[in-house]
Amino acid sequence: MSHNSFGHLFRFTTWGESHGPALGCVVDGCPAGLGLTEADIQPWLDKRRPGQSRHVTQRREPDQVRILSGVFEDDRTDGQVTTGAPISLMIENVDQRSKDYSDIRDTWRPGHADYTYDAKYGVRDYRGGGRSSARETAARVAAGAIARKVLGDSIQIRAALVQVGPRKINRDNWNWDAVHDNDFFCPDAETAELWASDMDAIRKAGSSVGGLIELVVSGVPAGWGAPVYGKLDADLASAMMSINAAKAVEIGAGMDAAALRGEDAADEMELGPDGQPQFRSNHNGGVLGGISTGQDLVIRLAIKPTSSIRIERQTLTKALAPTTVSTKGRHDPCVAIRGVPVAEAMAALVLADHKLRDAALKA
Amino acid sequence: MSHNSFGHLFRFTTWGESHGPALGCVVDGCPAGLGLTEADIQPWLDKRRPGQSRHVTQRREPDQVRILSGVFEDDRTDGQVTTGAPISLMIENVDQRSKDYSDIRDTWRPGHADYTYDAKYGVRDYRGGGRSSARETAARVAAGAIARKVLGDSIQIRAALVQVGPRKINRDNWNWDAVHDNDFFCPDAETAELWASDMDAIRKAGSSVGGLIELVVSGVPAGWGAPVYGKLDADLASAMMSINAAKAVEIGAGMDAAALRGEDAADEMELGPDGQPQFRSNHNGGVLGGISTGQDLVIRLAIKPTSSIRIERQTLTKALAPTTVSTKGRHDPCVAIRGVPVAEAMAALVLADHKLRDAALKA
Amino acid sequence: MSHNSFGHLFRFTTWGESHGPALGCVVDGCPAGLGLTEADIQPWLDKRRPGQSRHVTQRREPDQVRILSGVFEDDRTDGQVTTGAPISLMIENVDQRSKDYSDIRDTWRPGHADYTYDAKYGVRDYRGGGRSSARETAARVAAGAIARKVLGDSIQIRAALVQVGPRKINRDNWNWDAVHDNDFFCPDAETAELWASDMDAIRKAGSSVGGLIELVVSGVPAGWGAPVYGKLDADLASAMMSINAAKAVEIGAGMDAAALRGEDAADEMELGPDGQPQFRSNHNGGVLGGISTGQDLVIRLAIKPTSSIRIERQTLTKALAPTTVSTKGRHDPCVAIRGVPVAEAMAALVLADHKLRDAALKA
Amino acid sequence: MSHNSFGHLFRFTTWGESHGPALGCVVDGCPAGLGLTEADIQPWLDKRRPGQSRHVTQRREPDQVRILSGVFEDDRTDGQVTTGAPISLMIENVDQRSKDYSDIRDTWRPGHADYTYDAKYGVRDYRGGGRSSARETAARVAAGAIARKVLGDSIQIRAALVQVGPRKINRDNWNWDAVHDNDFFCPDAETAELWASDMDAIRKAGSSVGGLIELVVSGVPAGWGAPVYGKLDADLASAMMSINAAKAVEIGAGMDAAALRGEDAADEMELGPDGQPQFRSNHNGGVLGGISTGQDLVIRLAIKPTSSIRIERQTLTKALAPTTVSTKGRHDPCVAIRGVPVAEAMAALVLADHKLRDAALKA
Repeated sequence: MSHNSFGHLFRFTTWGESHGPALGCVVDGCPAGLGLTEADIQPWLDKRRPGQSRHVTQRREPDQVRILSGVFEDDRTDGQVTTGAPISLMIENVDQRSKDYSDIRDTWRPGHADYTYDAKYGVRDYRGGGRSSARETAARVAAGAIARKVLGDSIQIRAALVQVGPRKINRDNWNWDAVHDNDFFCPDAETAELWASDMDAIRKAGSSVGGLIELVVSGVPAGWGAPVYGKLDADLASAMMSINAAKAVEIGAGMDAAALRGEDAADEMELGPDGQPQFRSNHNGGVLGGISTGQDLVIRLAIKPTSSIRIERQTLTKALAPTTVSTKGRHDPCVAIRGVPVAEAMAALVLADHKLRDAALKA
Repeated sequence: MSHNSFGHLFRFTTWGESHGPALGCVVDGCPAGLGLTEADIQPWLDKRRPGQSRHVTQRREPDQVRILSGVFEDDRTDGQVTTGAPISLMIENVDQRSKDYSDIRDTWRPGHADYTYDAKYGVRDYRGGGRSSARETAARVAAGAIARKVLGDSIQIRAALVQVGPRKINRDNWNWDAVHDNDFFCPDAETAELWASDMDAIRKAGSSVGGLIELVVSGVPAGWGAPVYGKLDADLASAMMSINAAKAVEIGAGMDAAALRGEDAADEMELGPDGQPQFRSNHNGGVLGGISTGQDLVIRLAIKPTSSIRIERQTLTKALAPTTVSTKGRHDPCVAIRGVPVAEAMAALVLADHKLRDAALKA
Repeated sequence: MSHNSFGHLFRFTTWGESHGPALGCVVDGCPAGLGLTEADIQPWLDKRRPGQSRHVTQRREPDQVRILSGVFEDDRTDGQVTTGAPISLMIENVDQRSKDYSDIRDTWRPGHADYTYDAKYGVRDYRGGGRSSARETAARVAAGAIARKVLGDSIQIRAALVQVGPRKINRDNWNWDAVHDNDFFCPDAETAELWASDMDAIRKAGSSVGGLIELVVSGVPAGWGAPVYGKLDADLASAMMSINAAKAVEIGAGMDAAALRGEDAADEMELGPDGQPQFRSNHNGGVLGGISTGQDLVIRLAIKPTSSIRIERQTLTKALAPTTVSTKGRHDPCVAIRGVPVAEAMAALVLADHKLRDAALKA
Repeated sequence: MSHNSFGHLFRFTTWGESHGPALGCVVDGCPAGLGLTEADIQPWLDKRRPGQSRHVTQRREPDQVRILSGVFEDDRTDGQVTTGAPISLMIENVDQRSKDYSDIRDTWRPGHADYTYDAKYGVRDYRGGGRSSARETAARVAAGAIARKVLGDSIQIRAALVQVGPRKINRDNWNWDAVHDNDFFCPDAETAELWASDMDAIRKAGSSVGGLIELVVSGVPAGWGAPVYGKLDADLASAMMSINAAKAVEIGAGMDAAALRGEDAADEMELGPDGQPQFRSNHNGGVLGGISTGQDLVIRLAIKPTSSIRIERQTLTKALAPTTVSTKGRHDPCVAIRGVPVAEAMAALVLADHKLRDAALKA
């Protein structure tokens, strides 16, 4: 069962609410002997951290991570390493401002999980969305940093934002180096500028907008994953769809696969310059039969616009009285932006699990 | 771990290869006292059965299911009922023709799982795709019939094919009754006729084509599912992506969510005629925060064209010699067609599991 | 969840009732490339098979196993091997005689699971105990034969019966070779003869008797298992206690550990003749902190007498009327005898799982 | 997988080392709406807390628990309640004195997990036993307090120490009220006094001693648990054997079951004064076929003496040099004493899980 845990062998469990004292996770199943300090985790959290540009929420959270267990420094080891014991990570909440949320205590915000949490649990921590807040994703990013350690340097996980609202990037301009030179993790510098204007208008209108994230993972060897319900792409789909506001997941050709002919979809094989098998195309996104091909994994996920907007919307109170609601708190006008490091982390977490699962079969 | 199992409380494990003596599954966690005979399962298998039109594989399999355990008939009960013990289902393979496949023993068919199975396992039952064959989905459909029993009549699970190759249905013509009046599970009778011509041409060309399946589930109460890694939509995404040839999954607005504005995506609430909450739209596809809203669940999945085509494609042998391959066996020119009852079954299986999971929390 | 499944990476799921058409199991997670035919499994089933002496049930079951999936023979491999796909095993029930059981349809037999099954499920396959019959253990033994293949020849799993009723073996006479020379898997030939007389008297009296099984596993390397809830001994305890009629499990010194002093219980270490660490004693039964030490694993389990006896006992009917019941069917007067190969199988299944789990951590 | 998690629906994951900054757990799957504050947990921790008598370790730990997530106080609810979100509990380590342990950094203490951790992980937090320390059980006791909330007041879980070293209690003197009037959780006041003298001698000798814990759980309804690998007694056995230093688990008649005759072991049934079924004896310890009978659950577990003793023992260094070791730190001369509240907690945790699992089947 997995209400708040993810993974099988490399497994993490997250906890914490948006306005509780802290949030965190426990990472279980991490192999021993990997170098790990807070400095390995913090940079990834910093990528996701709020308040870094005018296009994201202005909540000020340092998101300083603390490792509470599972590592040990000994003069016989080369610095602090994992011990095989569960790794507990904690991040304190600093800038909560709970008063911002008191007016939505009894009102179900459209597009939010307010109504469904009440339907399921009968009680709801309404402060900042409580457990349904995207703040939970900080714990995923922290766990993902450990997953990257398990995967090692030969596997490269990179994501970019390729669409904001209706505006898509120009793929001819794709430049991975550009991703960190703008506020959007955008691989196309020109489009990034247009998005900046788009976003200014959206923010001014008190609205929000969706986006599309694309992930490319290089260096995964052929053979990870498993039929039939342990498929690598099924696990990736689950991981991506678990991210707040995700509404669609594509692998390789994705939705376009429906329109393809068989001779186009089947990626032909040939010998590469190194005498090893290679593919002439990658419509399958690096996965065949649920198992990695050795090609790049290509995954896209669509993120809906946040429902926290200043524009008034019709809704009901918990007492079933019609009312309107608008959100005045600090929010991301495009949650897809900060979703980029989260998607990377989830990919790392799925892959670390599958690396261990594959190794088990070689016992 | 879940190589060949799916679900947590309502859980099934499938086994069998395309050209082995039989295939089947074990359904575990089914509540006791539900009426269940082979006659409850067979009609769903018949929907998926091959050889029923010229547009699907001509392999002739009666797909007769046998219940081997987990049910009991007693004069104190009203017919045969489940006992709470694991339900073992078996379907014999009748029309295997293994000779069809001997020429692809040492050749990796592009777009198939041949290469990845060899990479992972070092050995492969090449007859008809072995374990990676879509024949495994018969076991899902059989298990899905039991899941429907768990869900009861108040929940209606229906799927239709809404796109074949580039041609989409006209949604204005949508008629659920039409779905069973054509060879495509198509809700638009006009488009079904065009698809018939399209498919004739594709088959004649020795090619194949992809398709898009749309699922609508009515009657799910608000409150099923769970944050954060037990999300109903994440489990549905995993279930759908586990279906052979699936490349994308959408919930509600799906990929289009990326282009939406917040005021459009957030489904407003109002009082319904029965004095209960209702929604003015369903961009979220019946799920908010991973929990059902009580609206229809709306799921779409894109299926790639089968890679078993008569058109020659470039590839490698297991000895890394370049060669070409074409498939002469009997195959579905559009596997998306027979994917429709499979997608329904997977939805039923996810929902039966979540029904039980939700009940546990009410303990 | 594990109603009818056991294990994590090497995992099996059993199904079938005592008087259904068949019983069997699905073994999932078996590494590929292991030689496996029915001939590898049948000898272990034959050890457990009923009707082989006057001291066990006279039900005549050939217990012929059939492999339905997960193996493949190819001229490129050296005989039939596992493919990594789930292995489905089936054993038909031949000698059911359901009429024997009709009189206990509405009566709860003391010491049996009749009352608890009714309490839980409201319905019960009363024929031969249905799912609660020890016949289910045939599937465990079959799965255990595959587990032994995973473990390889360097690990030796042996069990013996060391007590029948109040009479214990003389440990000075322990001879593993004797185990297969008597009807009791007894390592002490002298005691075996006394047991034969004891059993004749018990059978004549229409009674039954308990027994104590001792397992010794040699060749397990140091390092299998895991803290804190993945302990090797905790998993062994669960496995042994899952065997029908088991009431106690001991590891190493077992119950006697309570009476020990620290200086006696702590097994001292020294260098062995091969320059490797060895222990001077084995009070800990080959496990420290949940992880194997490399010493022999020593496990004992107490089996209660079967409750199927000819002697009349007081009980209730399902309608809560007081009555008496005695069992006239064919039963084991000492189920502990045939429990010996079952205990071996369960140990093999736990260890195969832990072998894979340990390998995963070396990824 | 369950390296550091336990349970299925009601599930907890522990983390932390003896000499790290803190330890804790995450409890997942707790139903919403249960009143829960630190004050509900602290009394159980206080029972287990070290330093409360001369017969336990003199380490001074306040073991103050803090709830970091999963609860919410709202003026609409009657005090702070669980929300269905994961409950994170943290206990800071205060009195570590790491210097005590530096001399055993390179030496494997006999009877401890030092050697096996090194064999498995290659690295080991040697301070106070690190992860293998019984200090981890504080997290179990904290989680167990929440499990008790799930179970409610109708279920009573009580444990007592019934043997210390070779000296057993006089069962005729059994008095549950006496359990909290002595330093041993002993239900027999007379024996408690003898144990006090015994322990003084043992402590003076620098030795330690084992013990036997007996658990009695009243109020469990008939029908909890499940065949075949979800047996209530198998899960209890696993839970008990996971406790540090446990070497044996008995249910009901336990080891004595081996010596019983069928007519004695089968607990006869009759009508109780309330017109409901009752049993004339309880040799089966409240479980038949893995399912609760409604009688008291009776469980015993044997705890070996701690291996941390002042008496010198022969062992090896990590460099395989023979040496002797004795432990000078603060330790429990009889860890079974503080094992009593831990065993109670584990029973509560198993039962809360099974309560939810049973409810799921009634969906």
